[in-house]
Amino acid sequence: MRMADILDRKRNGETLTRQEIEYFVNGYTKAQIPDYQASALLMAICIRGMTDAETADLTDCMARSGAQMDLSAIDGITADKHSTGGVGDKTTLVVVPVCAAAGLKMAKMSGRGLGHTGGTIDKLESIPGFRTDLSMEAFFEQVNRIGLAITGQTAELAPADQKLYALRDASGTVSSIPLIASSIMSKKLAAGAQNIALDVKCGSGALMPLESDARHLAKQMVEIGKRCGRNVTAVITDMDAPLGTHIGNALEVTEACAVLKGRGDRDLRTLCLILSAHLIAMSLQKSQEEAFAIAEQALMSGAAFQKLWEMVVCQGGDAAVLEQESCFLQAKCTKTVFSPQSGYIAHTHAKRVGECASLLGAGRETKADRIDPAAGLILTKKTGAHIERGEPLATLFAADEDRLQAGEARFLASLTFSPQPPEKRPLIFDTIS
Amino acid sequence: MRMADILDRKRNGETLTRQEIEYFVNGYTKAQIPDYQASALLMAICIRGMTDAETADLTDCMARSGAQMDLSAIDGITADKHSTGGVGDKTTLVVVPVCAAAGLKMAKMSGRGLGHTGGTIDKLESIPGFRTDLSMEAFFEQVNRIGLAITGQTAELAPADQKLYALRDASGTVSSIPLIASSIMSKKLAAGAQNIALDVKCGSGALMPLESDARHLAKQMVEIGKRCGRNVTAVITDMDAPLGTHIGNALEVTEACAVLKGRGDRDLRTLCLILSAHLIAMSLQKSQEEAFAIAEQALMSGAAFQKLWEMVVCQGGDAAVLEQESCFLQAKCTKTVFSPQSGYIAHTHAKRVGECASLLGAGRETKADRIDPAAGLILTKKTGAHIERGEPLATLFAADEDRLQAGEARFLASLTFSPQPPEKRPLIFDTIS
Repeated sequence: MRMADILDRKRNGETLTRQEIEYFVNGYTKAQIPDYQASALLMAICIRGMTDAETADLTDCMARSGAQMDLSAIDGITADKHSTGGVGDKTTLVVVPVCAAAGLKMAKMSGRGLGHTGGTIDKLESIPGFRTDLSMEAFFEQVNRIGLAITGQTAELAPADQKLYALRDASGTVSSIPLIASSIMSKKLAAGAQNIALDVKCGSGALMPLESDARHLAKQMVEIGKRCGRNVTAVITDMDAPLGTHIGNALEVTEACAVLKGRGDRDLRTLCLILSAHLIAMSLQKSQEEAFAIAEQALMSGAAFQKLWEMVVCQGGDAAVLEQESCFLQAKCTKTVFSPQSGYIAHTHAKRVGECASLLGAGRETKADRIDPAAGLILTKKTGAHIERGEPLATLFAADEDRLQAGEARFLASLTFSPQPPEKRPLIFDTIS
Repeated sequence: MRMADILDRKRNGETLTRQEIEYFVNGYTKAQIPDYQASALLMAICIRGMTDAETADLTDCMARSGAQMDLSAIDGITADKHSTGGVGDKTTLVVVPVCAAAGLKMAKMSGRGLGHTGGTIDKLESIPGFRTDLSMEAFFEQVNRIGLAITGQTAELAPADQKLYALRDASGTVSSIPLIASSIMSKKLAAGAQNIALDVKCGSGALMPLESDARHLAKQMVEIGKRCGRNVTAVITDMDAPLGTHIGNALEVTEACAVLKGRGDRDLRTLCLILSAHLIAMSLQKSQEEAFAIAEQALMSGAAFQKLWEMVVCQGGDAAVLEQESCFLQAKCTKTVFSPQSGYIAHTHAKRVGECASLLGAGRETKADRIDPAAGLILTKKTGAHIERGEPLATLFAADEDRLQAGEARFLASLTFSPQPPEKRPLIFDTIS
């Protein structure tokens, strides 16, 4: 087999065979195929597309390119969730404990954030002492014992995806739905869970702003899961405004705790219960209604909060912070942002709010940047609310005044006001399974 | 300007600006843009195409990427020719002397061959003592004094094309007509002549086997020339069978001399006169008929042969070899190939004949290979001829018997016989200016 022929075929819009895709993925992972051939093929894939079979083959080959988690050491039904990411998305911190409380085994590997706000690992690391570098034995042991663990993703998982992702980022080949779908799903397949819930977001703060693209991506990922023998449900959800009210690492842990204690933002709570219910339904073979009731019971009984507490204790964290009403980390400087005008909040541009959080110190632009776990913001008023000029819109948290100033300007730039209330966007656009 | 945006735009099928193309060509030539971004862009260009304006801009930027020949030191009207290449194509060795005899200034840079047979420089180097590494001063001085010089192409000419060509070859991005056209024309523009004749070949031995592709390439090259202020005429000619009867380096010099002495293969002679006439017509503002008569007169009077003789003497070659009736270099071994059957020669597959010549030692597979100047073959019968079983088809020349055997097998594989005479293909398919 020759890379030249594979390039010719995809350039001409032909369909690659499993063998050709395997040759490419393995050759590139082992550095036998140079970057300039791989980037040319990625560009041809971006323009020519891939069939469902090609996409599933690519995903499977990437999943097999390194270590694959063997969850057979875990006693029970394994489940996993993934979100395509958004601003204020702390659902993992709720869904994992809820599902664990319902009896599922949640062996979850998460990433760090690159971009506007931290990833789940960054959020958990705001809890003093919390360890995210569990050994595989400790990880499995903890899941078997208490039903849940969240640890950092190892470099051995889907190394082909890691290498290809970096190349795509540098070669203008990110925006291809088959490539995005295979990148996400290769990690999910390698992580080993049988039941997978995908939260595919759309709107101004999402990877896929358009609902049609989000739907296309969701369908591709569900199809990949099916072809690779996993149960997958994808929910297309709104990310036009931030999710919940708290954005920032420690702030989001605090908001997740509020939801687990039966309080918190209604949309955030509903979305967490729906995602949990999908995992419970797939894992325990229940109807979505039964599963939703189980999830709600886990939340309302305090069993889910208890699971988060146990996990934090097991992973060395100071669980006492989970009980605090206000955020457990106090930023050095705070500032209240007041509304510059009266009217309805017509739109909160989620990406700009994410940029605001990043300016405050909650995100990182490069891998080397340090996150300020206390930085972020709390929204006082959300899209659709009526506000008078001079009323508080949000509170910002940062390490210094310069950051507060930069954050305030970006936050105000995220808002649009109107004399009429805006049309409400749905929380859930569609469910694909 | 960012390469990421240029990649995005071409990936989406948009048209690049002159500034973007300049940024890419200069950045890549200076190694500021990495191979993997360049190959991704080349792939996007292969699939999305380029407008005439983009193609002309790319060509012009590549032509300006290094040294440009300033032919103002040459007193007179400068002309140049280029062939997309084929088997047995020795037209340069005839056209350059004919045009010089007609008063044009032929400052010609040529390349070496990579593939089936040698390039013009390889052919000329079969003449003992002939120098192809003239300094620019010697080159200009010779053209001013005797009207013609053929020297090797310097590495400083269109370095962007040299670098991009190597990358295209390695990244599956050769087969794009805008990229082929800009590669050829960038060198012609940098070489500086005002009047350019292009011989675009089609058929089984050509870069573009299909006439439609050859026509498309010819149109693009003429358009580039116009947009860059040069006079360009392209002739689409047949390369389904080898051109003339001699294939090999010294053998082709001998055949060119025969044409310059008023003998030789009729098709070869006609094509050389037509190409010469186009250059004469453009340069001296004559009609094609007048120009053809001038070219024929230059040939028949012996003036053109005299010009070749002068050039060989000026460049240190042993001009006496030009007078020899048979080839001036004798190969160690020869073999006559006899027809395995009776009938008409229905087809001579030019590419296979080229491979035969290469097996005999006349070509090189890699840059490091040495060419055997005496190796090659002479066709006794050409496509359309009737032959009896056992009659001679060709004579092969090589350094050893093994090469002769390999060459014979490939030569026989190039032929198809039929009981009826084949339909004759035209010598000239079209002329585009």
